[in-house]
Amino acid sequence: MESIDTRIAAIRGRMKEDGLDAWIINGTDPHQSEYVCPRWRTREWATGFTGSAGTAIITHDKALLWVDSRYYIQGAEQVAGTSWLLMKQEAPGVPEPNEWLMMNVPPGGIVGISADTLMVGVHRAMEGQFSGKGIRLKATADYLNEVWGDRPAVPQTPVVELPLSISGESRSSKLARVRDFMRRQGASYFLLSSLDDIAWLLNLRGRDVEYNPVFLSYMIIGHKEAWLFTSPRRFSPDILASVSHDMHVRPYDEAPTVIADRIAVGDVVFINPEKTNMLLYQALADGVEVREGREPTTDFKAAKNETELEGMRKSHLYDGVALVNFISSLDAVKNQYNEYELTQLLAAQRLRNPGCLGDSFGPIAGFGPHGALPHYSASSVGSSPIKGNGLLVLDTGGMYEFGMTDVTRTLLFGTPTDEEKKDYTLVLKGHLALARAIFPTGTSGYQLDILARQFLWEQGLTFFHGTGHGVGHRLNVHEGPQKISSKPIAVAMVPGMVTSNEPGIYREGKHGVRIENLEAVAVHETTEFGEFLKFETLTLCPYERKLIDMTLITDKERAQIDAYHAMVYEKLHALVDDPTWLAEATKPL
Amino acid sequence: MESIDTRIAAIRGRMKEDGLDAWIINGTDPHQSEYVCPRWRTREWATGFTGSAGTAIITHDKALLWVDSRYYIQGAEQVAGTSWLLMKQEAPGVPEPNEWLMMNVPPGGIVGISADTLMVGVHRAMEGQFSGKGIRLKATADYLNEVWGDRPAVPQTPVVELPLSISGESRSSKLARVRDFMRRQGASYFLLSSLDDIAWLLNLRGRDVEYNPVFLSYMIIGHKEAWLFTSPRRFSPDILASVSHDMHVRPYDEAPTVIADRIAVGDVVFINPEKTNMLLYQALADGVEVREGREPTTDFKAAKNETELEGMRKSHLYDGVALVNFISSLDAVKNQYNEYELTQLLAAQRLRNPGCLGDSFGPIAGFGPHGALPHYSASSVGSSPIKGNGLLVLDTGGMYEFGMTDVTRTLLFGTPTDEEKKDYTLVLKGHLALARAIFPTGTSGYQLDILARQFLWEQGLTFFHGTGHGVGHRLNVHEGPQKISSKPIAVAMVPGMVTSNEPGIYREGKHGVRIENLEAVAVHETTEFGEFLKFETLTLCPYERKLIDMTLITDKERAQIDAYHAMVYEKLHALVDDPTWLAEATKPL
Repeated sequence: MESIDTRIAAIRGRMKEDGLDAWIINGTDPHQSEYVCPRWRTREWATGFTGSAGTAIITHDKALLWVDSRYYIQGAEQVAGTSWLLMKQEAPGVPEPNEWLMMNVPPGGIVGISADTLMVGVHRAMEGQFSGKGIRLKATADYLNEVWGDRPAVPQTPVVELPLSISGESRSSKLARVRDFMRRQGASYFLLSSLDDIAWLLNLRGRDVEYNPVFLSYMIIGHKEAWLFTSPRRFSPDILASVSHDMHVRPYDEAPTVIADRIAVGDVVFINPEKTNMLLYQALADGVEVREGREPTTDFKAAKNETELEGMRKSHLYDGVALVNFISSLDAVKNQYNEYELTQLLAAQRLRNPGCLGDSFGPIAGFGPHGALPHYSASSVGSSPIKGNGLLVLDTGGMYEFGMTDVTRTLLFGTPTDEEKKDYTLVLKGHLALARAIFPTGTSGYQLDILARQFLWEQGLTFFHGTGHGVGHRLNVHEGPQKISSKPIAVAMVPGMVTSNEPGIYREGKHGVRIENLEAVAVHETTEFGEFLKFETLTLCPYERKLIDMTLITDKERAQIDAYHAMVYEKLHALVDDPTWLAEATKPL
Repeated sequence: MESIDTRIAAIRGRMKEDGLDAWIINGTDPHQSEYVCPRWRTREWATGFTGSAGTAIITHDKALLWVDSRYYIQGAEQVAGTSWLLMKQEAPGVPEPNEWLMMNVPPGGIVGISADTLMVGVHRAMEGQFSGKGIRLKATADYLNEVWGDRPAVPQTPVVELPLSISGESRSSKLARVRDFMRRQGASYFLLSSLDDIAWLLNLRGRDVEYNPVFLSYMIIGHKEAWLFTSPRRFSPDILASVSHDMHVRPYDEAPTVIADRIAVGDVVFINPEKTNMLLYQALADGVEVREGREPTTDFKAAKNETELEGMRKSHLYDGVALVNFISSLDAVKNQYNEYELTQLLAAQRLRNPGCLGDSFGPIAGFGPHGALPHYSASSVGSSPIKGNGLLVLDTGGMYEFGMTDVTRTLLFGTPTDEEKKDYTLVLKGHLALARAIFPTGTSGYQLDILARQFLWEQGLTFFHGTGHGVGHRLNVHEGPQKISSKPIAVAMVPGMVTSNEPGIYREGKHGVRIENLEAVAVHETTEFGEFLKFETLTLCPYERKLIDMTLITDKERAQIDAYHAMVYEKLHALVDDPTWLAEATKPL
């Protein structure tokens, strides 16, 4: 294998040809995808570092890799013996990548980023930062195309079409809604790069990216015509014919050419600058008017229709069966399995369900101190055995043909400490308060967030991740635009949105607790003060009753837990392997 | 008296000289003050409309006055018989003022606003809106200076100096903090227009504006020199000498000249574009670099020092005595007085206190259905008599030499309905939940807001005003930057901030409920998860126990009310006229 330093040298060669002083490898794909397919694992190829985040900068005499605190150790190990110098992001005295560039690139110098991974919004912000120092930012060619010999191709996994019985809305109806939005915006074209938006809009699903059933593509939508840029070879003849009825299907890399050919001065183009890359943007002719905002598809997609909600409910019914079968068998398998093997056992339970396609994301199973790492991922090597007393944080999900799930339960092995019980109960109280929230139409997630945190805060505790993320319907497990978090993200909750409810607490070196259900937004009532919304809980799985400290639970909370458990029993008891176990797990507190 | 139409004609004459198609009178002052002194009651002079908000637009053949729904009736009455056409803001089909201009001013046309009341931020936003239509926006002279014959002069009420025993920090120390901020921003000058910021910074108080103890002025702060623009005649020789030690004192209208003379290319000027008007901004030489943000003084002022907090506590002690004396005497005065007279009685009780300077804002006293109008202001004519059963919403405050108060109590007369009791109890539950909140450092008011609303929302109820506003120390009763509201205003609560806690409910035609205490932010504890803050309640006045529905109150809430009442009794009983009444009003529930 060629050495990492050979790769750096090859990139420097191309930089020289373009007169660049520095080239940035951000390791993202052209669509701002959360998970990146092998072709765009550019940071990993250039540096050897395999973490999920980081920024690499190559200059003529330096090669610097910024990683965040999660990766200080791993990053150092993986770049050892190469020219890469590790920069500990956020450590005292360590400049941010852009600051470093401003200090080290001479006035008049040029910094480049591959145009296909440089988003319009990022380009604009960096230009603003650099202009004061007289540094230019250039959207370059993707040099790795030339220097990465065996670079994986753009994936072209087969694409399947969702029937109306699963999507609940035809492609033509969705396209009509998008065009209606465009009309109201005065837009003649809409450039769409977000992969899950395209999958939703077209009722198509691929397998290009791990867990996320999307397919690499761009779209141009006009009022009369539309173009889908993706390999036509991934379609069956039937699907190709069906899709071609609504739009032209052209190869992935032809998007810039068609943009340049078809969009002319006088046209108004709608884009989301945060998700449109410079490769497409630069293809727009000078003088074309651009209107910016969030993709209408993101909002349409977030508000699930009744068919999608029915699919989500069915997924959660099946998933509840798998979870209960798994948990009820835990006593028997204790001391035999490690964290990773447990996730395999649960995955196997899920696969017993009709329509289950596998996991919806990489499972998290952290026992004891591992539970205190919120994003700990158990792998086949190095997993802790489940032995002795301790809490297991188990965050997993299933992808079904008709929906998906994302659920966390914290399970007790052996005897709990008082602190474990108290922590579990405080997290549960917040989880319950959020689940029973009633709120007026127009309420954003940032208004609700404290409901899940208030009992922890009272005790001087908190957690440092969001409380809830949007969840797709048989699509991506993380989906915008709504969020339940302390950040002021002003996106109103609307009926049909599905959101996780997952407060936690993490005590370093000791244990973690997280409890997560999915909640669908529904109309509660309309009064003289307006319309009020509520959450419908989709997830069906008992809480860990032995971890509930009853001295901290109010009558209202006890009634809420009992009602939830009664519903879980009612829906699952005829379907699970061990209904007696379920009856015991769900009996009134 | 000259007619309103004569005034319109005079303004049109000046518009013609400047080639204007429309002139906007926004009725604000050059400092974005909440209360406007007579000189800048321009909308009232031009239209005859006396309401507190509205936009007037004069074109060559039209005169339009936009008012919001509070003023639909009053506005129509007051402009009847003139050329002014009333535009009902937010009514269906009624365009906003800027929209109307874009529809009615021809391309190439010019719209003007007096430069001294046109803020930089508003100018920028309007230019952006108008540019698409080819309309120009011009910051004009203040035409009213020429056409308003007996226009009131710029006020020059005497200014007093706060001793260190009240301010807790010297002027020079505050100036040093401002200059330190400027250094960190790389700013050579700071232009300050916000009147309460200037009053705080200089430890000076005036009486130019009703209730708000400010004085009309601008400041320029450099690193070595500073200028205060206000009439030197308002100072005593001692204060003038003291102030002149730290800065030049120049007449109010010389600010633009000094800006033009002293600030040159190479300088960096810090301004808040939302509070700096075009009169000053246009005085900056081309090429002067401008840095923008919130005034540092606004943040410094919001976090009260220990001396200021002591003054606030003392104000609330005295105010509690006045409130208890007033409420305990209510039975005796019932049926004799109307709403307005009650506010006079309370004001008289306040004035019995040493150091009381009067009301801190226009008192609100709404009985029965009047209580359902959140900003109802009882006046000497037309006040409702306090007769029969009903709730009285009483929102008042006192200004003391050493601090100020703002308090709302809802008082019961006669027998309550079940709905009144339930409404009062739900509002109280929210008020208590906010008062006992514990939250990490960095938390903004928008995260806390739901605590005060959650119990109302559960019942399909809500209120349409903010939950809490910042309160000044012996300054303005409404003070930024923090707010407790549903709007995503990202300003962290910091120790020393004083904020109102005032949820309510308003049932049109029936009754209103509002309960308001002031809360000071304080440090609660520091744990391994960081620093946590809490509220210290400043207001001392019993809740209305006969309105509390005990079936809706939890043990925790009962204990919280009892503890608050015990504190009120403890602090006030030796000072009030009727300690027996107080003992009864504050005994455990």
